[in-house]
Amino acid sequence: MNDRLSAQIRFILEADKLKEIERQTRLLTGSRRENSAEHSWHLAVMVMILSEYANEALDAAKVIRMVVVHDLVEIDAGDTFCYDAAENATKAERERRAADRLFGILPDDQRREFRGLWEEFEEGRTIEARFAAAMDRMCPVLLNLRNKGQSWREHRVPAARIFERNGKIADGSTILWDRIKAELDQAVAEGLIG
Amino acid sequence: MNDRLSAQIRFILEADKLKEIERQTRLLTGSRRENSAEHSWHLAVMVMILSEYANEALDAAKVIRMVVVHDLVEIDAGDTFCYDAAENATKAERERRAADRLFGILPDDQRREFRGLWEEFEEGRTIEARFAAAMDRMCPVLLNLRNKGQSWREHRVPAARIFERNGKIADGSTILWDRIKAELDQAVAEGLIG
Repeated sequence: MNDRLSAQIRFILEADKLKEIERQTRLLTGSRRENSAEHSWHLAVMVMILSEYANEALDAAKVIRMVVVHDLVEIDAGDTFCYDAAENATKAERERRAADRLFGILPDDQRREFRGLWEEFEEGRTIEARFAAAMDRMCPVLLNLRNKGQSWREHRVPAARIFERNGKIADGSTILWDRIKAELDQAVAEGLIG
Repeated sequence: MNDRLSAQIRFILEADKLKEIERQTRLLTGSRRENSAEHSWHLAVMVMILSEYANEALDAAKVIRMVVVHDLVEIDAGDTFCYDAAENATKAERERRAADRLFGILPDDQRREFRGLWEEFEEGRTIEARFAAAMDRMCPVLLNLRNKGQSWREHRVPAARIFERNGKIADGSTILWDRIKAELDQAVAEGLIG
């Protein structure tokens, strides 16, 4: 048997667990909360469609690989709701340990590739990382706004924090932030968030 | 407002429905059936890890975009169980109509890109399409074998048909088919499928 392939299959099977990590955002129909695997897929679709709006020329194929990989650490660390301060205080350490274990299943070259993509995303210094992060913020906003502000209302997130967090979309794309800001302004005007 | 961006956002929101399309295969824990959105994500992970085994050099970035897009037509056409002859007789026509409507939401250039990727996958002539199809077959086999042949047993699929369908994995990668064939042979020996 091929040891390299066995390790790769072990990782692929381990990745299946991301389908069981629940996020706060609900599907557009409201039928259930979404999970981090299907969310990662949705971000890949978004990158394919929206990368033309990035502030700088970028490597869209790399951004797609980055969003495919970016939430894998949640298999061990769980999904941390972005507006939960207590959970966010321990997030980096929990996710670092998760990255050690999970990416450590892969052969060395692929461990470095996957870990590199995840670290680049977390550090947010390249345009690819900033655009991936913009997609990661924009997607739940699009869903939430069409579900009458569902996850923000459930967690009583004030409008100021919603604008603050999502204002970072502008680091990846000012055009997309202008659009999202206009949608958020309208939601405030309609009393959906406040 | 930007009409192009409005159409793109409309498509992204429409894509959310793929998260509600249920497949026959269960998650590795057996907790529920998987849906086509998270399955598409799982294939993207597999391409990132396994493309080194393709029979010919391929454009892995294109294969990733192809697997992200390949099941979108199920939003209208539903998931067709690969061993259901009656459903498969009408699959092509149902999916063609779905492609017309869904990809038609996008601006023309992106409609052509998405539809092109889907058609290339369906036609299976390029190495990228054959490798994407190999992933699409291999993933449920990996899950099924570790769930004691779950979806095959539920639908009483005979071993000969399992070998016949999945033998096409070899069109994308003979190395991966050799591995899957060995796993299937063992499952037959253990009486899991037959």
